[in-house]
Amino acid sequence: MAAPNQKVGHRTTLRDVARIAGVHPATASRALNEETRALVNEETARRVLRAAADVGYRPNPIARGLKTNRSYTVGVLIPDLTNPLFPPILRGIEDRLELEGYISLIANTDNDPERELLDTQAMRARQVDGIIAATARRDHGLLDEVLAAGLDVVLVNRWLPGVPISSATADDRKGQRLAVQHLIELGHRRIAHLAGPLDYSTGFDRHEGFVETMRDAGLEPDPALVVVSEAFTEAEGARLCGELLESRREFTAIAAANDLLALGCLDAFAERGVDCPGQVSVAGFNDMPFAARFQPPLTTIRIPHYEIGTAAAQLMLGRLQESDGEPHHVRLEPTLVVRDSTAAPA
Amino acid sequence: MAAPNQKVGHRTTLRDVARIAGVHPATASRALNEETRALVNEETARRVLRAAADVGYRPNPIARGLKTNRSYTVGVLIPDLTNPLFPPILRGIEDRLELEGYISLIANTDNDPERELLDTQAMRARQVDGIIAATARRDHGLLDEVLAAGLDVVLVNRWLPGVPISSATADDRKGQRLAVQHLIELGHRRIAHLAGPLDYSTGFDRHEGFVETMRDAGLEPDPALVVVSEAFTEAEGARLCGELLESRREFTAIAAANDLLALGCLDAFAERGVDCPGQVSVAGFNDMPFAARFQPPLTTIRIPHYEIGTAAAQLMLGRLQESDGEPHHVRLEPTLVVRDSTAAPA
Repeated sequence: MAAPNQKVGHRTTLRDVARIAGVHPATASRALNEETRALVNEETARRVLRAAADVGYRPNPIARGLKTNRSYTVGVLIPDLTNPLFPPILRGIEDRLELEGYISLIANTDNDPERELLDTQAMRARQVDGIIAATARRDHGLLDEVLAAGLDVVLVNRWLPGVPISSATADDRKGQRLAVQHLIELGHRRIAHLAGPLDYSTGFDRHEGFVETMRDAGLEPDPALVVVSEAFTEAEGARLCGELLESRREFTAIAAANDLLALGCLDAFAERGVDCPGQVSVAGFNDMPFAARFQPPLTTIRIPHYEIGTAAAQLMLGRLQESDGEPHHVRLEPTLVVRDSTAAPA
Repeated sequence: MAAPNQKVGHRTTLRDVARIAGVHPATASRALNEETRALVNEETARRVLRAAADVGYRPNPIARGLKTNRSYTVGVLIPDLTNPLFPPILRGIEDRLELEGYISLIANTDNDPERELLDTQAMRARQVDGIIAATARRDHGLLDEVLAAGLDVVLVNRWLPGVPISSATADDRKGQRLAVQHLIELGHRRIAHLAGPLDYSTGFDRHEGFVETMRDAGLEPDPALVVVSEAFTEAEGARLCGELLESRREFTAIAAANDLLALGCLDAFAERGVDCPGQVSVAGFNDMPFAARFQPPLTTIRIPHYEIGTAAAQLMLGRLQESDGEPHHVRLEPTLVVRDSTAAPA
């Protein structure tokens, strides 16, 4: 039976109830849930319940009460908050979680395994319901420990091949493929790859994307033109690009595994008077904030970071609310953004 | 009595013990504290205790055990993680806290009072020892509630005049003074101020700094040239600068209350073919990442954001470890960074 003021064909959502009651969706969610109602001001709770009754809102019955003693809190482990790609991922996670009345607590692990362990212990002690981790490395066992402790885990931005943990990332392999295809279409043949750390899936998958795209075009990558950075930083980009330039190896383009590495290349060019794109083209990866303001504006791969965050939160909610046992891997589509740092070779 | 391998005149610190034991300082701190030793691997704890004995390390006796039932966790409320000034503040907070074995849990409040309330409740439920808040508004009572609940609170980046809560911020009034003096020294007289929201101390104090510097120079500010933004964003900067340009009021320089507002001015200039600094000079505030790469590179006020974070953490540790009752206000020194967006008027 449709409620009187409900539009036909429109399923009433928590957001509708919150709007009518004039409260935040997270507040509406808490008011509607008996376990958490005491956290909400009494008058507010009454207003929300009245609004829900008016529009005929029914919370998803499967979603509630399957597990008890929920803290409605999800821990989020981020390797480095000063890397500008993480804030929009976090916003996506938070916005999606709060629609179901969950909040997130963030810890910045500084890419330090010991700090990550301490942060994870602290989150467990604080009784988080699950952990969304952006810190996965191919070589480490922390996640096994967290899983053994019975905590739900979802990976975001990075994933672990062969490990049965759900993940939401960009399709990094395809993204790097788009960048390298663009350089090949411009006429480049001697293309260098400034790779990210290969113990992160982001570095590994982009490297794979580079190698397979070159081979598909009949261009065997020159091992001397594939250099692996120790971190996705501007300083590493400048150091490695400087070494490439000084090696006197011939190349006309660089596919960098992220924008900060590409930005380091621009620094190395400026220092040595190398014209970009006149002498060397550079493509980055991420379309980070201000990439369009670099000199020259950076050709790069745009990644839907906010949507990666909402997808990771959705995977976590699936695990928490439906005890969904199967791991899912969500891969979001990258797109090529052509600006002025790439051009046909001279 | 000095231990044998301790240098004369060098007080042994927790960092020294950690280095000798080959562990993270936070781990060393946990191992040395009886309350938290169980969180550390037994062999590691033995190694830390041996290292501490070897070098004669004694933890500060006043610092331990004054309060019991510590969670060694501090909550940090941030208004907007995508604003690039907050990540270095967070790093400063985390680095200083972890030297004493504390970790921080971060919540992003999105400048939304209701979300802030939910995040604070969740942190209280998670038994944080205190809250460091970067979200202070001059008009709201949330902090009273937190204080009434007996939680220690320290403000960071923004403060509340007249409220007895410790704070660590930049000297915002002095920073804006430096920017306006620079414009006056270049010969500008008709100077506009693109102010931040006046319900944040950052917006309020910088506005005060603008007005008093103009008056000290015998230049009564023109009310039509003082415009107040609703948020410290590029979009607001572009909107308000566009309105100023279209008002046909005469001005030769803009003192913007932060770099994102200044960046919006550069957008508004580009859209209308206004030359900067040829026709109008612009100064920002913060020296945010990539400000030197804007077109033109931005003259701005550098703020020691990382040190603001460590100072806030230090204030919190003072409250937690010494039950220090007096509020302290730490004001860090701003410096002028002159780049190409300011020049003498034509």
